[in-house]
Amino acid sequence: MASWQYDNETAITEAGPGRCSTVLDPAWNIGATPNGGYACTAALRALTRLTGQPDPLAVSVYYLRPSQSGEEAEIRTELIRAGRRASTAQASTWQAGRERLRTLATFGQLGSDASAAADPAALSIPPVNLPPPEECHPRDAVEQGIELAITSRVDVRIHPALSVPGKAGRAEVAGWIRFADHRPVDVLALVLFADAFPPSILGILDQAGWVPTLELTVHVRRRPVPGWITGRFRTRDLADGMLVEDGELWDQSGALVARSRQLALLRR
Amino acid sequence: MASWQYDNETAITEAGPGRCSTVLDPAWNIGATPNGGYACTAALRALTRLTGQPDPLAVSVYYLRPSQSGEEAEIRTELIRAGRRASTAQASTWQAGRERLRTLATFGQLGSDASAAADPAALSIPPVNLPPPEECHPRDAVEQGIELAITSRVDVRIHPALSVPGKAGRAEVAGWIRFADHRPVDVLALVLFADAFPPSILGILDQAGWVPTLELTVHVRRRPVPGWITGRFRTRDLADGMLVEDGELWDQSGALVARSRQLALLRR
Repeated sequence: MASWQYDNETAITEAGPGRCSTVLDPAWNIGATPNGGYACTAALRALTRLTGQPDPLAVSVYYLRPSQSGEEAEIRTELIRAGRRASTAQASTWQAGRERLRTLATFGQLGSDASAAADPAALSIPPVNLPPPEECHPRDAVEQGIELAITSRVDVRIHPALSVPGKAGRAEVAGWIRFADHRPVDVLALVLFADAFPPSILGILDQAGWVPTLELTVHVRRRPVPGWITGRFRTRDLADGMLVEDGELWDQSGALVARSRQLALLRR
Repeated sequence: MASWQYDNETAITEAGPGRCSTVLDPAWNIGATPNGGYACTAALRALTRLTGQPDPLAVSVYYLRPSQSGEEAEIRTELIRAGRRASTAQASTWQAGRERLRTLATFGQLGSDASAAADPAALSIPPVNLPPPEECHPRDAVEQGIELAITSRVDVRIHPALSVPGKAGRAEVAGWIRFADHRPVDVLALVLFADAFPPSILGILDQAGWVPTLELTVHVRRRPVPGWITGRFRTRDLADGMLVEDGELWDQSGALVARSRQLALLRR
């Protein structure tokens, strides 16, 4: 048994060829439903094992129906292409006879190109400028209009100027994030962290309630150094009751470690 | 037989339950390989038919191996979840016994929420400012260092300030796009158009050659009105020989019609 909450609560058990199981813990809920970044983690763990490659270079998760917290889930995996440098695989996560989410991902090895650091054409996105964590506001101080069990598992601190719903002046949220039990961050955790901030649309709305993710794409760009992760999420595009939110995550050295984009539903 | 090149050259033939076939035409090549946006179009056509929903709300394409131009391809489809408002499905595209690309997508109906247009919280991205098409440079005047058969099929005109490789001052490309035979644009064509501009990394590199897409995500946000489409693509993140390029497409009314993001390989 691992000693960290995240590892215990995303553990998978082999259940035959191409099959494993997990239990979705209610501690990661947004309202009554497991957080999307959490719900796909056991599937990504299964795909890491299946591909034998450590780093999720590209992850696409399609949320089909709400997952059920407190219930066992079966994960069915398929290795689509095994390569030396990168492998692509998918996972279907089922509960009670219905598929809940479908995950398609390419895994590889980051940092294996020794010349990359010296590449004169290297480009990056400078980290967001934040007051120190102790001057930021915990996520549960940001009134989303819904119960946030997940704040027992991730410690999210929001920039004070962006922490009052409807008062940011723009659809943006930024802040710090780490595991509540101080588990070290790793590449899989970045996928979780890309979906663990309050919805950025709260910057211009008083309340948003549950903003369910329809589709989440994450590109992990670098293995993070230990410490806090900082993140910035922005919605620039809301139409037809659906929004596109872009996110960036940096590690404590200021390196860009992940990009995210999600299509989400605004229910009003 | 349809009268437009695009329809003829992405046509699918039913070949049994969950199977159809297409032929990838060399007219859409980048170098010796079918363009990625083109290669997934027959699969998206099959998924449109399978889901019975017209609009690709979210599309994720994972490119496993180069497709073979001039060769038949078999497309195997799976309806993952059929819903009243949205349906998710996937397609595997095979040639010569090997899967070439895997497509996962959610289809629905855009513009069905009558209140959306009046939504006070609606957000959008203003269109890129461009000189008229006749003052822009055709794509084949942009020296990518590779043969571009695709310019026989799409008419792409690049902003003059962004059309000389290595001289834009930033990794950005912007311009106009339409079908060469003036076929009207539709939602599927937006996926193609999201991958038909020169790589934006050419803004800061003399030559880029073939920049193969590993993964492409497109969100279609609105049905386009007839006329030219404008697009802007930017790379802000290049590390480890891989880049993330973000794109936006607008229709002639100035409405944002699609967003794109791709992970691509820079081979140097």
